[in-house]
Amino acid sequence: MPESSVTGLLHRSGSLLTARLAASATAVEGEVMSDDQFFAWLAGRQRAHVQNVRRVAFDELSGWDFDPGTGNLQHRSGRFYSVQGLQVRTGFGPAREWMQPIINQPEIGILGIAVREINGVLHCLMQAKAEPGNVNGVQLSPTVQATKSNYSRVHGGSAVPYLDCFRTGDSGRAKVLADVLQSEQGSWFYCKRNRNMVVEVGPEVEAAEDFCWLTIRQINSLLRHENLLNMDARTVLSCMPDWRVGAGAEDGGRGSLHSDVEIRSWITSRQSEHELTAVLLPLREVERTAGSGWKRTEEAISHERGLFFSIIGVDVSSSHREVAAWTQPLLEPLGGGIIALLVKRFGGVLHTLISAHVEPGYLDVVELGPTVQCTPENYAHLSAEDQPPFLDVVRDRRPEQTLFDTMLSEEGGRFYQAENRYLIIEADEDFPARTPEDFRWMTLRQLTELLKYSHYLNVQARTLVAALRTLQEVEDSDADHR
Amino acid sequence: MPESSVTGLLHRSGSLLTARLAASATAVEGEVMSDDQFFAWLAGRQRAHVQNVRRVAFDELSGWDFDPGTGNLQHRSGRFYSVQGLQVRTGFGPAREWMQPIINQPEIGILGIAVREINGVLHCLMQAKAEPGNVNGVQLSPTVQATKSNYSRVHGGSAVPYLDCFRTGDSGRAKVLADVLQSEQGSWFYCKRNRNMVVEVGPEVEAAEDFCWLTIRQINSLLRHENLLNMDARTVLSCMPDWRVGAGAEDGGRGSLHSDVEIRSWITSRQSEHELTAVLLPLREVERTAGSGWKRTEEAISHERGLFFSIIGVDVSSSHREVAAWTQPLLEPLGGGIIALLVKRFGGVLHTLISAHVEPGYLDVVELGPTVQCTPENYAHLSAEDQPPFLDVVRDRRPEQTLFDTMLSEEGGRFYQAENRYLIIEADEDFPARTPEDFRWMTLRQLTELLKYSHYLNVQARTLVAALRTLQEVEDSDADHR
Repeated sequence: MPESSVTGLLHRSGSLLTARLAASATAVEGEVMSDDQFFAWLAGRQRAHVQNVRRVAFDELSGWDFDPGTGNLQHRSGRFYSVQGLQVRTGFGPAREWMQPIINQPEIGILGIAVREINGVLHCLMQAKAEPGNVNGVQLSPTVQATKSNYSRVHGGSAVPYLDCFRTGDSGRAKVLADVLQSEQGSWFYCKRNRNMVVEVGPEVEAAEDFCWLTIRQINSLLRHENLLNMDARTVLSCMPDWRVGAGAEDGGRGSLHSDVEIRSWITSRQSEHELTAVLLPLREVERTAGSGWKRTEEAISHERGLFFSIIGVDVSSSHREVAAWTQPLLEPLGGGIIALLVKRFGGVLHTLISAHVEPGYLDVVELGPTVQCTPENYAHLSAEDQPPFLDVVRDRRPEQTLFDTMLSEEGGRFYQAENRYLIIEADEDFPARTPEDFRWMTLRQLTELLKYSHYLNVQARTLVAALRTLQEVEDSDADHR
Repeated sequence: MPESSVTGLLHRSGSLLTARLAASATAVEGEVMSDDQFFAWLAGRQRAHVQNVRRVAFDELSGWDFDPGTGNLQHRSGRFYSVQGLQVRTGFGPAREWMQPIINQPEIGILGIAVREINGVLHCLMQAKAEPGNVNGVQLSPTVQATKSNYSRVHGGSAVPYLDCFRTGDSGRAKVLADVLQSEQGSWFYCKRNRNMVVEVGPEVEAAEDFCWLTIRQINSLLRHENLLNMDARTVLSCMPDWRVGAGAEDGGRGSLHSDVEIRSWITSRQSEHELTAVLLPLREVERTAGSGWKRTEEAISHERGLFFSIIGVDVSSSHREVAAWTQPLLEPLGGGIIALLVKRFGGVLHTLISAHVEPGYLDVVELGPTVQCTPENYAHLSAEDQPPFLDVVRDRRPEQTLFDTMLSEEGGRFYQAENRYLIIEADEDFPARTPEDFRWMTLRQLTELLKYSHYLNVQARTLVAALRTLQEVEDSDADHR
């Protein structure tokens, strides 16, 4: 079997990989940087990355124009992304038909974390990266976070560091641990998807100036810090093989309320049930259609009720980006989001209450989301029966029920100060096992299995899967049933 | 755990199901009907279902019109399906930009086979069903083959028999063996997908007049008969759990050239690599755009070169359908298709040569297809280097290489006499393990694993998976490595 595209008949065993990841998730020795050293390094990166972000009127955007025909806000190169209109029709829910602006970015980017064994322990190469939409300048991002425009160098910046580590196929030698297309926010993006990759690299790969090596234990503890691990880092982490879950046999659903085929059947039934059509429109039609609620001023495209989000422009000057200064449009969400997962033990095994979530920008209408995912302000004008299910349970939680509670940011390259409160809440003893049709109890093993495939878990659920893996409670639960 | 939506903590073991399916696939006793009795029954159904199909001009279609604004061919009710235009742009291949008519049917239908234990052996409930596009009147279809328009009774016909067997969730008690959305022909359908279901039912379910109970062994042998098992039956069969493959552990890739994660990474790389945009257009724009090649006469919408397909109208009268007479448009492919899978043993394990196949109507650009899937006539005007890869291997095969070779029909409710030649060909000893970037060797176990998830294998590959499972050669191969 001498051919280079053939890996050979022997594979590194999955259980060895699991053990190596588990060692990194529990490591107390062998770390390249102590936690204190990390925070000192991060503070240094914060000082080095002075990024000045100023809101500007649309006519101050350079290179970005409203197309005279369509009214779409787009870059003169035709690349990057554009803000277009979307017309949505559904057969369910409180709003059956609406128009909205939406970000269209048809390119598939790469979000990748390189891992390497150092001192016998796997470390992840993380990047200190400032984004104009971040509330706090620098956050921790994956090794590579690059759109195709980035890495084909449309904007004439410098090459993307470490991109070569993620080349697969004949041209590359990446040893891939995970590689899957996943969606992003379906209310804000039209059919956006990125390649989520984890690859193992050799000792020749070293950390450059803005990069650091961290164990999985360190990254897990950083996930509990406000606005520190960025969205891209969280989604890639969620796609990493789970170090606490053995090889996923089909009947490994022992201990789960529903078998794997029952879960897949439920997902299929939700996709079949929910009819939704979403059609791109000229943005001008959204602004000009009476009753759409959206209007454009010189500074923003906003909803007349002050709800949902606005499209704004920013001027950015940076000491450390590929390009030193630029302008761009961003989406500014209005109101703080609540993204919460209810968990409960059944037969000693931790289950999560997952919803079949519909967003117009999903490729196939439905993806799995957390128990609650909403901006409560957007529902304030609706009746009690149209409030999001289980939002009351989240609101009325007692302190001892809260297992995870952290403000985290969404992608700062597209969204302006988009912070959400991520919560994991343990449901009470008397919380029912029976669920409404759009909800199902699933184990972490079942979520991990679905994360190997595209477009099953939405980006908010993926952050909460990463958060779940940081909980001691889950470790205990899984240990019983491995 | 008294709640009805909860299945309980104990699941029927996957390996017991595998054994029961295996028994049905090898059964020589316990069959409800002998093979001879089946063919006699089928001949009776052929005689009973007299269906008269006559090509008619578009203005003879009743209930179907070209919309005055868009020129789309659609039903007055707004349901069923419509023929629209599609504009396609890609960054690769011999044709980089084209327009074409395409069938748009946004509803998700159900294709379902009910299985039941009779005389201790699992039997599948199959239906003798005539479709206007069939070359031979009646073919064997799944228990249920229903669009949402069908089962919500838009056309005022009779209720769909056995539909209740396929109700899942709170309202139903289906015991689901498989339930997954899968795509159909992406060159002819825009984002078409159907729900492929296999459910086990109890002794209360009996075969009605047009239905018969067959073991998996019998169905497998019928798959080698020309135009007998229809497309819908074949795709559902392919999604059935494989009776020769044990529970799919992640590192169960022992014996495969590529590990499962390597295969998933390759799929992701192909999806990222191939940029394609496909946008629905008014059909009028396709006909009126100079150089599109498509023109409409009173009888057909055809390509000026006589290639690809035509849209035609038919008038159908039937003694046995829900509605006794109707008219409808159909898509008539021009030229016979070759759909071939090369197989080869590596380390004693049978591998299939799978391609990353791009069709404009796929939800996400790329799905996995057979080694060769083309209508050679459509490539006749292109240079040697633009011929489909491996078509020469298929053409130059020796008789002893051919493991499967049967003419089979595509969906007769939408396509007029769409026959393809399905082939499984054993590659020679010296056929290389190394593959071009758009091809990979995969085992049947790997294909079966992907078939649990939506939109990985295209409909042609699914037929060939069903065909592969009928081969004695595969049995032998898997037995070595189970």
